[in-house]
Amino acid sequence: MIKKNLKSVSAFAPATCANVAVGFDILGFAIHNVGDIVTLKKRDDNQIIIVEISGESNIPLETSKNAASAVVKKLCDDLSISTGFSIYIQKGIAIGSGMGGSAASSVAALVALNAFLENPLSKNELAEYALFGEEIACGHKHADNIVPSLFGGMTLIQSSNPINVVTLPSLEIYNIVIHPHLRVNTKDARDALQNDLSLKLHVKQCANLASFISAIYKNDLELLKKSSEDYVVEPQRAKLIPNFYEVKQSAMDSGAISVSFSGSGPSLFAFAENEFMANKIAKNMQDKFKEYGIESDFWISNFKAQGAYIKEIIEG
Amino acid sequence: MIKKNLKSVSAFAPATCANVAVGFDILGFAIHNVGDIVTLKKRDDNQIIIVEISGESNIPLETSKNAASAVVKKLCDDLSISTGFSIYIQKGIAIGSGMGGSAASSVAALVALNAFLENPLSKNELAEYALFGEEIACGHKHADNIVPSLFGGMTLIQSSNPINVVTLPSLEIYNIVIHPHLRVNTKDARDALQNDLSLKLHVKQCANLASFISAIYKNDLELLKKSSEDYVVEPQRAKLIPNFYEVKQSAMDSGAISVSFSGSGPSLFAFAENEFMANKIAKNMQDKFKEYGIESDFWISNFKAQGAYIKEIIEG
Repeated sequence: MIKKNLKSVSAFAPATCANVAVGFDILGFAIHNVGDIVTLKKRDDNQIIIVEISGESNIPLETSKNAASAVVKKLCDDLSISTGFSIYIQKGIAIGSGMGGSAASSVAALVALNAFLENPLSKNELAEYALFGEEIACGHKHADNIVPSLFGGMTLIQSSNPINVVTLPSLEIYNIVIHPHLRVNTKDARDALQNDLSLKLHVKQCANLASFISAIYKNDLELLKKSSEDYVVEPQRAKLIPNFYEVKQSAMDSGAISVSFSGSGPSLFAFAENEFMANKIAKNMQDKFKEYGIESDFWISNFKAQGAYIKEIIEG
Repeated sequence: MIKKNLKSVSAFAPATCANVAVGFDILGFAIHNVGDIVTLKKRDDNQIIIVEISGESNIPLETSKNAASAVVKKLCDDLSISTGFSIYIQKGIAIGSGMGGSAASSVAALVALNAFLENPLSKNELAEYALFGEEIACGHKHADNIVPSLFGGMTLIQSSNPINVVTLPSLEIYNIVIHPHLRVNTKDARDALQNDLSLKLHVKQCANLASFISAIYKNDLELLKKSSEDYVVEPQRAKLIPNFYEVKQSAMDSGAISVSFSGSGPSLFAFAENEFMANKIAKNMQDKFKEYGIESDFWISNFKAQGAYIKEIIEG
């Protein structure tokens, strides 16, 4: 049932960095103050229509092809809600940047819709719906952007069917996400990965992942640095980002704790001990991209970024 | 250089449970009050000789083939120590039980030898030497028994070359290690494993491993239980232990948090919420083995078991 006294709800969902080097498909963190805003306005008819997408072109307006409207439609159908909604999407995340743009739109739309419900869904239930949006946007039901966008901070997905999330403690350091103006298609990035890996490599990666998680609980920066090497995915995807290793090296040379792809790229993330270092590292990475003729934007954030939240409710 | 005033040193090193379900080759914990004692007595000549092995037959007495004497010989050679030693080994761990018997002997021998040194080695350095013992005993330089036997408690190996160890917080629960009177050869157990695994399985295992580590830091028993399923190794090795799944089920039915092999078996470990439950679970596992005509012994321990230590020093 829909609350009768609400006319319009706007929700914000943050951009996210998924994978985080050693946590392919399971780790992710939310980025402070960068994200999408989705507004749902009740309609008099029962249609679900995207009225406006601002901040980005090239996103389908058709309800069934757009992740945000498709998840709204699915949840309305499942709950037999006959109210229609006009959807306004304000993109703060570039498409194909590897910063969880489609996830943020789906999550913001679902959080806005949830505010209309007499019996709102849990975050886990919303995450299940957002998975459908990811399938529409990139052909794969991956939860590693959805979960940090919903929960905030750094998250670990213990299981994606059913969703079970572990929220990790906030590292007392800073992160940089830098977006070079390139595009990597999520599907191409998946295709770059071999279906199998050796047991030996699996063990090496597990050793780093387990140590990385330990380092988060202990805020142990030395261990975090030692355990940040991704043996499985990074070597296979590095070729998709021109001059990846040069930019990574420039960040490490400037004192970064760890550097790898944000999601499947082209954006990269880096960890820095403090805000001053973060700025230095980000600028050096930007300069290095520029050397190769690539423009970029970056954001600096701590690990306390809030998950999706309601920005505005208009009654009436 | 060797201390002149020491005549004899005895050291104890605990039995260990390696792998711990989701931590193949990287996780392990020490078992309280079960282990090997190795005594080194200075000789007048420069020979390194095993004088006695008690508590177990079928262990080679030849210096180069016995893990304990081989590591003593190697360290003496590397440090150009010309003093000879008589070695007395008191086995508290059955050979081929999957409880780290060879590792305990090597570790105890090295800790005893270390007490003779004017400049003793660090634990990490001792671990590097103990690896040679594992190679002699089972043809594979695996550190996952050595490390918990040296460090105590539950340990994580971030890197085995060079050795880098993370000591994990002590879970506030109990563990059971049960040894059915069967033998599984470590080499056969390794041969049972395929060299490759799918990326999909790797991700599932990583999700559980990362959650398992989180659960240890949070002492979150629900999460520990959820994340204890080993998708990679257990299914491939289960066939080596007759009625493994029946015994595991009996433990789970009695309230165990997790159950799997200790190392490559045949011993199994189980986690229990408290000591009372641990006894109940252990007895039910023992009864279940007995139903299939298999006798067994079990030990119950908390997660605070001390690593290898000096038991006795005789001066003179």
